[in-house]
Amino acid sequence: MTVHFNDLQKRHAADFFLNLRDRICTEFEAIETELEGTIHKNKAPGRFERTTWNRPSDDSSDGGGGEMSVMKGRVFEKVGVNISTVHGTFNPEFRDKIPGAIDSHGAFFATGISLVAHMQSPFVPAVHMNLRMITTSKSWLGGGTDLNPVYPNEDDTKTFHADLKESCDRHNPGYYAHFKDWCDRYFFLPHRNEIRGVGGIFFDELNTGNFDTDFAFQKDVGETFLATYPGIVRRHMNREWTPENREHQLIRRGRYAEFNLLYDRGTVFGLKTNGNTEAILMSMPPEVKWG
Amino acid sequence: MTVHFNDLQKRHAADFFLNLRDRICTEFEAIETELEGTIHKNKAPGRFERTTWNRPSDDSSDGGGGEMSVMKGRVFEKVGVNISTVHGTFNPEFRDKIPGAIDSHGAFFATGISLVAHMQSPFVPAVHMNLRMITTSKSWLGGGTDLNPVYPNEDDTKTFHADLKESCDRHNPGYYAHFKDWCDRYFFLPHRNEIRGVGGIFFDELNTGNFDTDFAFQKDVGETFLATYPGIVRRHMNREWTPENREHQLIRRGRYAEFNLLYDRGTVFGLKTNGNTEAILMSMPPEVKWG
Repeated sequence: MTVHFNDLQKRHAADFFLNLRDRICTEFEAIETELEGTIHKNKAPGRFERTTWNRPSDDSSDGGGGEMSVMKGRVFEKVGVNISTVHGTFNPEFRDKIPGAIDSHGAFFATGISLVAHMQSPFVPAVHMNLRMITTSKSWLGGGTDLNPVYPNEDDTKTFHADLKESCDRHNPGYYAHFKDWCDRYFFLPHRNEIRGVGGIFFDELNTGNFDTDFAFQKDVGETFLATYPGIVRRHMNREWTPENREHQLIRRGRYAEFNLLYDRGTVFGLKTNGNTEAILMSMPPEVKWG
Repeated sequence: MTVHFNDLQKRHAADFFLNLRDRICTEFEAIETELEGTIHKNKAPGRFERTTWNRPSDDSSDGGGGEMSVMKGRVFEKVGVNISTVHGTFNPEFRDKIPGAIDSHGAFFATGISLVAHMQSPFVPAVHMNLRMITTSKSWLGGGTDLNPVYPNEDDTKTFHADLKESCDRHNPGYYAHFKDWCDRYFFLPHRNEIRGVGGIFFDELNTGNFDTDFAFQKDVGETFLATYPGIVRRHMNREWTPENREHQLIRRGRYAEFNLLYDRGTVFGLKTNGNTEAILMSMPPEVKWG
């Protein structure tokens, strides 16, 4: 039996996502300032721009909304960090796609943070991170993060996975293997028989019955992302690249675009259920080539 | 009751698609040679390159295959013309998505031509054209063509639609209005509330019981495409453009990519049923930006 999240727990989650968003944006802007090398060093450091949006309500009540933070910088070619807290009623035709939504007669609450960074340098991996809390007639936490290098680098992959494993291990010795495997299965392009990137972790429908320990784990994933990814960026951001490296980066980004539009549940579901198109497509790469 | 296509009719269709392909490629290569203006005039005229592929068979028999013709030129940034003749058995889970495939126990035959052109110049519209013959327990013809300008131009839209209307009117006074409307409904991006391009015609499941007249109409659509589109290209191909025009073109191409991966039945169906990935994604724009 599901133990439901109460209003205080929902507020704690939304507050954490907002606070994490602020700290991530501060760190990413610091990275923009630190850049020394590369062809873009004479550009001004990027800064985040914020836009709020409201969800059209399904009835006369307020449907919630969100805030998009987008930076187009000299290290981060395009990074979007979206937070949102929304509630309402799913259309009947989508209820069977969401756990517990039939029994809730479509009623749902969702709060989350979603981040995608596409980098100027072909040597700095792109990254995706998402944390979410959802309630229907069920209540659960989900999230994850995965690294998408153009040129996979063993040190980066090791650092990223080791830090995630350490974070998982603090909460449950089985989590890392389980959630790493889930990530590999989820971020897979069947039509190319390729995994997108070098993985990470992915979890969903997490509700052990103890909100405090589940939420502590979710928060730890967010903190670990903030602790590990900036180091990977700094490792490579001052390295020069060639037009051939850039070309290869643009082609590899095609895989990212294909995955998002063909398979990503959040993107496809969001676009087909009247979500905020701009916020959803914030994840698309700024520039892509198909050969 | 469906009147089935016989082997001779299937061969006539496949032969026509091949012959049309050859004439289109010849005409497009002639356009490449004719270019006089624009920033690309010192590049060599593009030429088509051909690649054949075989469909992995569903049993021990031959599954057919196809031929891709791709040109990356100085007028045509990327144009692909694919012809294919394939047969086999659909997986059980996809049979309910194709008319007549449940009753045929998945058995199908399909032959067709598919063309997508993405142009160097932001002032030359991109275009899509497709003609197909399919049999399951039913038999039908389908096809269409639609124009995708970056900067819609009234003269082009008028020419394109007038030529298609004339072609439709030769066969059935109701066809143009019906198939134009079908095109507008099909090439629509609900998440942006936008029609992709300025339309054209789209028809499917055409089988009036008289193969000769149906096939004559389908052939006419192909001939009309070949008669009208090259003129539109020649109208604008020598005109210079600015970096701002190019930027706008790359952003508009994002709509094309979104449509193909999110909604296009051929693309989504092909990729999810083990089709030839390279041939299917030949339709993707060579370069795209998302803002």
